[in-house]
Amino acid sequence: MKPRVMSREECKELLSAARFGRLGLSADDVPYVVPISYIYAEEKIYLHSGRHGKKVEMAKVNPRVCFEVDVLEGRSWKSVLALGRASLSEDMEVKEKVFDLFMRGKMGGHGGQAFSRKDLEKMPLCVWEIEIEEISGREGMW
Amino acid sequence: MKPRVMSREECKELLSAARFGRLGLSADDVPYVVPISYIYAEEKIYLHSGRHGKKVEMAKVNPRVCFEVDVLEGRSWKSVLALGRASLSEDMEVKEKVFDLFMRGKMGGHGGQAFSRKDLEKMPLCVWEIEIEEISGREGMW
Repeated sequence: MKPRVMSREECKELLSAARFGRLGLSADDVPYVVPISYIYAEEKIYLHSGRHGKKVEMAKVNPRVCFEVDVLEGRSWKSVLALGRASLSEDMEVKEKVFDLFMRGKMGGHGGQAFSRKDLEKMPLCVWEIEIEEISGREGMW
Repeated sequence: MKPRVMSREECKELLSAARFGRLGLSADDVPYVVPISYIYAEEKIYLHSGRHGKKVEMAKVNPRVCFEVDVLEGRSWKSVLALGRASLSEDMEVKEKVFDLFMRGKMGGHGGQAFSRKDLEKMPLCVWEIEIEEISGREGMW
């Protein structure tokens, strides 16, 4: 069966419903994919990570990233790919905003626990905002 | 909790056990990620796809690809990333070999049905062999 192209609304619904996806990066044309929790809000994808590490270094070299979410149920599958640009920040206001979004999405911090401003200040974190430029999705049967 | 680095053997076990992963590609430093069924055999990753389409065109431009497999169970996660080079082929012998691997992995064709040489000859397919150059895996709790 030929896969069906999902509408933009269907793509957004899947992005809104899921909590885990895969971030795709590329530096010097070497691709890299890493699973990560996220929140989709205000038509953007928000992530948080450590301040260093491979994905952070790659995004600094090349902020053009993609974000993939898929659902497999029995033989039917759906997948959405968003292509965009990542902005990384360690600013307290941005950190608070993103943690607030994670909290509202029942994904605050690790294991759903809340963090105070004081906790956040101490944590060596960086938050990601991915501005989506293109979005596409397909569904089918394997 | 800090994630733990998985041993090479643990990475191979996860690659052997799973049947779906995500192929990461890059062309002109624009990353692309697509979910796909696969078989891990002889220390290589085998896929099949249509003869055309975005992933095929990208792999022709830049055969350097990665393949990601993850498992999420409750709050614990594991993920493996293999980095390598893809060779695409439409040769009948290679197609048969790959379909045989998929059949043995209970993933023959679509929905597990077998294909004869005649069927295979008619199908507009290309098979992918990814030679793994680097493999790494981590596990942790989110």
